[in-house]
Amino acid sequence: MARSDPGDASDSPGGEPAALDLEAFRRHGHALVDWIADYLAGLDDRPVREPVEPGDIRARLPAAPPERPEPFDELLADLDRVVVPGLSHWQHPGWYAYFPAMSSPPAVLGELAAAGLGVQGMLWSTSPAVTEIEAHVLDWLVDACGLPEHWKTTGPGGGVIQMSASDSTHTALVVARERTRRLTGAPAESQVVYASAESHSSVTKGARVAGFGEVRPVAVDATFALDPDALAAAVESDRRAGLVPSVVCSTIGTTGTTAVDPVAAVAEIARTHDMWHHVDAAYAGSAMICPEFRHHLAGVEAVDSYTFNPHKWLATNFDCSVFWVADRRPLIETLSIVPPYLRDAASASGRVIDYRDWHVPLGRRFRALKLWWVLRSFGLEGLRSLLRRHVGWARDLAGRIDGHPHLETIAPTPFALVSFRHLAGDAATRALVERINASGRAYLTGSEIDGRAYVRVSIGSTWTTARHVDELWELIDTTALSLATPTADGDDHA
Amino acid sequence: MARSDPGDASDSPGGEPAALDLEAFRRHGHALVDWIADYLAGLDDRPVREPVEPGDIRARLPAAPPERPEPFDELLADLDRVVVPGLSHWQHPGWYAYFPAMSSPPAVLGELAAAGLGVQGMLWSTSPAVTEIEAHVLDWLVDACGLPEHWKTTGPGGGVIQMSASDSTHTALVVARERTRRLTGAPAESQVVYASAESHSSVTKGARVAGFGEVRPVAVDATFALDPDALAAAVESDRRAGLVPSVVCSTIGTTGTTAVDPVAAVAEIARTHDMWHHVDAAYAGSAMICPEFRHHLAGVEAVDSYTFNPHKWLATNFDCSVFWVADRRPLIETLSIVPPYLRDAASASGRVIDYRDWHVPLGRRFRALKLWWVLRSFGLEGLRSLLRRHVGWARDLAGRIDGHPHLETIAPTPFALVSFRHLAGDAATRALVERINASGRAYLTGSEIDGRAYVRVSIGSTWTTARHVDELWELIDTTALSLATPTADGDDHA
Repeated sequence: MARSDPGDASDSPGGEPAALDLEAFRRHGHALVDWIADYLAGLDDRPVREPVEPGDIRARLPAAPPERPEPFDELLADLDRVVVPGLSHWQHPGWYAYFPAMSSPPAVLGELAAAGLGVQGMLWSTSPAVTEIEAHVLDWLVDACGLPEHWKTTGPGGGVIQMSASDSTHTALVVARERTRRLTGAPAESQVVYASAESHSSVTKGARVAGFGEVRPVAVDATFALDPDALAAAVESDRRAGLVPSVVCSTIGTTGTTAVDPVAAVAEIARTHDMWHHVDAAYAGSAMICPEFRHHLAGVEAVDSYTFNPHKWLATNFDCSVFWVADRRPLIETLSIVPPYLRDAASASGRVIDYRDWHVPLGRRFRALKLWWVLRSFGLEGLRSLLRRHVGWARDLAGRIDGHPHLETIAPTPFALVSFRHLAGDAATRALVERINASGRAYLTGSEIDGRAYVRVSIGSTWTTARHVDELWELIDTTALSLATPTADGDDHA
Repeated sequence: MARSDPGDASDSPGGEPAALDLEAFRRHGHALVDWIADYLAGLDDRPVREPVEPGDIRARLPAAPPERPEPFDELLADLDRVVVPGLSHWQHPGWYAYFPAMSSPPAVLGELAAAGLGVQGMLWSTSPAVTEIEAHVLDWLVDACGLPEHWKTTGPGGGVIQMSASDSTHTALVVARERTRRLTGAPAESQVVYASAESHSSVTKGARVAGFGEVRPVAVDATFALDPDALAAAVESDRRAGLVPSVVCSTIGTTGTTAVDPVAAVAEIARTHDMWHHVDAAYAGSAMICPEFRHHLAGVEAVDSYTFNPHKWLATNFDCSVFWVADRRPLIETLSIVPPYLRDAASASGRVIDYRDWHVPLGRRFRALKLWWVLRSFGLEGLRSLLRRHVGWARDLAGRIDGHPHLETIAPTPFALVSFRHLAGDAATRALVERINASGRAYLTGSEIDGRAYVRVSIGSTWTTARHVDELWELIDTTALSLATPTADGDDHA
């Protein structure tokens, strides 16, 4: 390869662009790796969210794209000058907002390796290792998480990596829609999707994108888990109204409070009414590497599809959502289209997986590499230990909250999310979030449930330690005390 | 940050996992960067596709996931032992198959930087720099490619990065479906999508996923471009049959032969019948950075949406598909769902973009970073120079083919794809592909059009030089001569 050979003038009359110089790539790559290590090591000294107003970042960029090359040093300098001052630092040890976007050094390196290889896995034949490692690692995860054996690619089912749980759920909904259409002749507009009122917005969005007529929010019980009697009643009511129940989504670990729907009871209703049953375990699915959480999976052996996001809580950077189907045939039948330029002897043999038929996109990068590297670098023991620390800290925090005179948890802590509120009311609860977030030392999410404000503390950053959780508790404790009477809060927060 | 401080035993009773040691990350990162440089520099000495049979790669992997951590050296060694022997090397200088998956050192480093930062751009507020740099760089591309000014985020339209053109086209189809439903009340099942018979399979797949009743393949002319008279006739025939024409997709640079549909004429028909008009320029869109290709855009100022893939031919590794809408309102109205945990003051102000409302997934990584780095590292001049070399070599190759006694091109070469066949017939054409691919020195795609076999040579690897194209021509020339009579080919290829 002559890319860094300036003597090969025949095909580079203007000289080879510096951007293609592989010796420079080594230098720049080493410098960037060091920059990332410094960034991660220095996060604790930065605010969790940088203060920034709309337009601040764009104002630092030139109006027109560059005509001439810029040296790599300027790109690197702009990470500090333009990018970092405009970030909310999801990898910060004080990040407790949303759900975690847990990453780790082996995952970052796996992403780099995949980018360096630059191969495509749309067909088995377009790079067999991409497909075979993905299938194998997802079969590993079936064992690692105690999932049903028949979901493996070596059985009737199979797993595939998608970009996000939204994509996985949307895919399940499309397959279910076509299945119901085949079985009943009902158009999408007459088909109904069921999910608890606490299910993720991706169910509603996926159903809207897939063109379903209705998404029926099902009532929840006192723990915010789906009420199966309410589900059965809704299905029967819709049937009487001439609608066609098509698919039900259960959630293991809702976004609001990590509630766990009764999967077995839902599965029974799905079976009775011949509905597709999809399980969204986007966040909590990672916990299933620890046997003590697997009672939450009860009933999952009867479901049709299941998704969770290693990019949330299994130390694997976004994007890496895993999606299994119990039977891969309806998935492939729904999504397979083979134009002449994609016909292939290996595909025709039926001996290989062509993952382009398992999701909407055709092209796909080698995302299994980082998941493979995470599993091997930590070992399952190491990952269990990381997650158990998070859960332990969360339950300890929940205990401190319930022992506080002005705070109460509003839901159990089955995983590593603590949901609580200030006893002085919504204004104090909202003020608590605002003051702690303004400190720069921690970042929480304020939300609402049953029409009342509450606080979500999601523990799951790779770099969070016991010291950080102690510091968070001090912030919560002192802020809650200062907001102990409704009048201390002020009407501006009401 | 105390991750590499073994003295902080309080939160790591079993010792900190080696996978979290940032000093080790530096060493491993440097080693991996060097490994990638060596891989790319050594590609020319490897076969373009490694010989591999189904199951070969999985057979090299342990049956069970590891319980204990493995050292990084073993991961790196397995790149050579397990991964590389199972790849088709898309970055090989002899890669002429499909369309290119063009990458470059700055793009690989941009991907690494994004992975290292590990931030999420679903809302502006979840990391403002992610959104503002994406919006700004896509506005830059509007200027760089001579696209309509009103597509910019500073105007009524806007651009967003999606994973693939399949996702972009699917998104356009969903927005169009809902628009038609609002305008006419017609359910998806009554709506029709039009695209030429040479349009990409992603149109048919996207329409099936979105639940459209019909995809009407429109006849093409002698250059394989959509025939607007045939389109008008099909639309009118469907109207008479009680169907509802909803959306038409034009292609600039078809996958078969890089044919260019008459966008202006299609736009006029779309306007007359009030259809959404989407343009798929997945491959050829990158060429628009060179003014001499922009005549192919004639009429694009009247279309509703447009996509192209910098991950195909703009030196930016997968995934990076850009998607513009002329008016962002129907897009956002169709896809916006705001649960309480995503409510946000900046979003409510209307002063910011929340890109989660621009596509199916919610989570999104910082893909704009690599595109920004590619534009800056090459400069537009450098990128134009790269693409013009590819086009020049392709046209030169097309000329040699048409001067050959046993070969003929079957379509023009407006970009860098050469489509040709052997004059001795389909068997000889197929044998030509098989023999050249078996050489390991070049990899082409065999396909079919109008029921006849032909060969696609797509020039666009970052590392291809004039020497490689000369070598390819020698292979084509000598193989074609050896197949000059039908009997030389043998019936087994018929």
